[in-house]
Amino acid sequence: MWSFKRQVNYYETDRMGVVHHSNYLRYLEEARYVWMEDVMIPYPEIEKQGIIVPCTSAEETFLNFLRYGDEFSVHMELSKFTGVRMHFRYKVYNETTGDLCLEAETVHYTTTREDYKPTSVKRSHPELFEKLQSLVSNEMDD
Amino acid sequence: MWSFKRQVNYYETDRMGVVHHSNYLRYLEEARYVWMEDVMIPYPEIEKQGIIVPCTSAEETFLNFLRYGDEFSVHMELSKFTGVRMHFRYKVYNETTGDLCLEAETVHYTTTREDYKPTSVKRSHPELFEKLQSLVSNEMDD
Amino acid sequence: MWSFKRQVNYYETDRMGVVHHSNYLRYLEEARYVWMEDVMIPYPEIEKQGIIVPCTSAEETFLNFLRYGDEFSVHMELSKFTGVRMHFRYKVYNETTGDLCLEAETVHYTTTREDYKPTSVKRSHPELFEKLQSLVSNEMDD
Amino acid sequence: MWSFKRQVNYYETDRMGVVHHSNYLRYLEEARYVWMEDVMIPYPEIEKQGIIVPCTSAEETFLNFLRYGDEFSVHMELSKFTGVRMHFRYKVYNETTGDLCLEAETVHYTTTREDYKPTSVKRSHPELFEKLQSLVSNEMDD
Repeated sequence: MWSFKRQVNYYETDRMGVVHHSNYLRYLEEARYVWMEDVMIPYPEIEKQGIIVPCTSAEETFLNFLRYGDEFSVHMELSKFTGVRMHFRYKVYNETTGDLCLEAETVHYTTTREDYKPTSVKRSHPELFEKLQSLVSNEMDD
Repeated sequence: MWSFKRQVNYYETDRMGVVHHSNYLRYLEEARYVWMEDVMIPYPEIEKQGIIVPCTSAEETFLNFLRYGDEFSVHMELSKFTGVRMHFRYKVYNETTGDLCLEAETVHYTTTREDYKPTSVKRSHPELFEKLQSLVSNEMDD
Repeated sequence: MWSFKRQVNYYETDRMGVVHHSNYLRYLEEARYVWMEDVMIPYPEIEKQGIIVPCTSAEETFLNFLRYGDEFSVHMELSKFTGVRMHFRYKVYNETTGDLCLEAETVHYTTTREDYKPTSVKRSHPELFEKLQSLVSNEMDD
Repeated sequence: MWSFKRQVNYYETDRMGVVHHSNYLRYLEEARYVWMEDVMIPYPEIEKQGIIVPCTSAEETFLNFLRYGDEFSVHMELSKFTGVRMHFRYKVYNETTGDLCLEAETVHYTTTREDYKPTSVKRSHPELFEKLQSLVSNEMDD
């Protein structure tokens, strides 16, 4: 499964001594954008075509903490694509200890800056539509 | 229902022109801590007693955007308390437009810095336990 | 001197147990925008007129820490206005202990989204220009 | 000169469409910690020895914007070390355009969590002291 690694930054920790829980949505976003680059649909290019992809829902289960000095990986897949909505699933591992730290799912939709309402890219951007459809996987079920 | 208001900060927006979705968990945290102050169990005091209250899960549905210049309110209730786990429910409204922007639920547990595992406060802090139990409400169901 | 107060948020602390130093530029920004509202030139209105006000330099001296639970105040003045550049000076106090926590100065310039180069508002927005000039003060020298 | 590269994250931009100026202190911190790792004095190890290194002052001149999709580099040197205070100088370049985006200097001091006052490491940690002294350079003057 596709994954992305980096280290925890000091400024991402809080006085509890661990990564503040609000930062995980930022880690997932970083993973998505590196993934999009890797699958040849870089997000900055998508925005240049007038499309934006807001987040419409998020579910996170926090299982173990990440601390400063830890390296973590975000394992990720596009689990569903309806032409409008993109469902992503994630597992974040502490690469230093092997612990599973987060299980998450986020849903996003394609829209334009003029509209901000869910808009299918099927007709407007058929190549992007087909590319995304071909990338759907469900390995995380197992 | 208890609520808390403030304005969107400029640094909370992103290049999409709206509040970045990761900030809502920060807004909910702010609301919880103001609520705890209001119900006379200020969180800094709880930490001085050696208790910390990490977040163990979060569910968010993003319904409308907040933008710079908007005032928002977080409506909130402690919907369940098991002695270890605290369930909070939230609705975030744009006070400028009246729109419902976020529906959310977060779960937290009581623990200590030595342990970081869920630990009941029933025996160790009976007053805190009873206070929290007395505060449980379920108005948001309606 | 004009000032603005609020509490430290939990998510603004780091594993050192204190407010992460990068957050002070955010506190100063909050103060500026509340100030602009108070002096009747609200920043969202300025942006609607096509003007943006980026930061071009910042100097900060960190003197004491702020911690979770502390209330702080930002004392601030517009110390110089050239028609293009706005110089602000700040002192941040811990309202809980009375300690001076930060002395700072930031410089900003007026520009447009089309340009992003320093642009005088003297001709294009004479009312804004005169208003800002009338607000310059140098109380912090004393 | 030592340098460190990474991409701008989406969540680091603001509604002006550029990296929010408060994030640069975070970029500089990231650079320092990668540098410390590279020169074999990893900061997590230093904290394990009871030492913390708060920031006592910062000067930043913002020269050009960074935008989402840009790669940037932080060029950095330890320009002075007194046994207590560490002075760092930085230049941040947009690797996509070649533009110089930021010139900065930060000063930090060594202390302990018990004390939080400037404390020399000369006697307590002579190896760390000598290592840091040997790393001082002044290439950025040229």
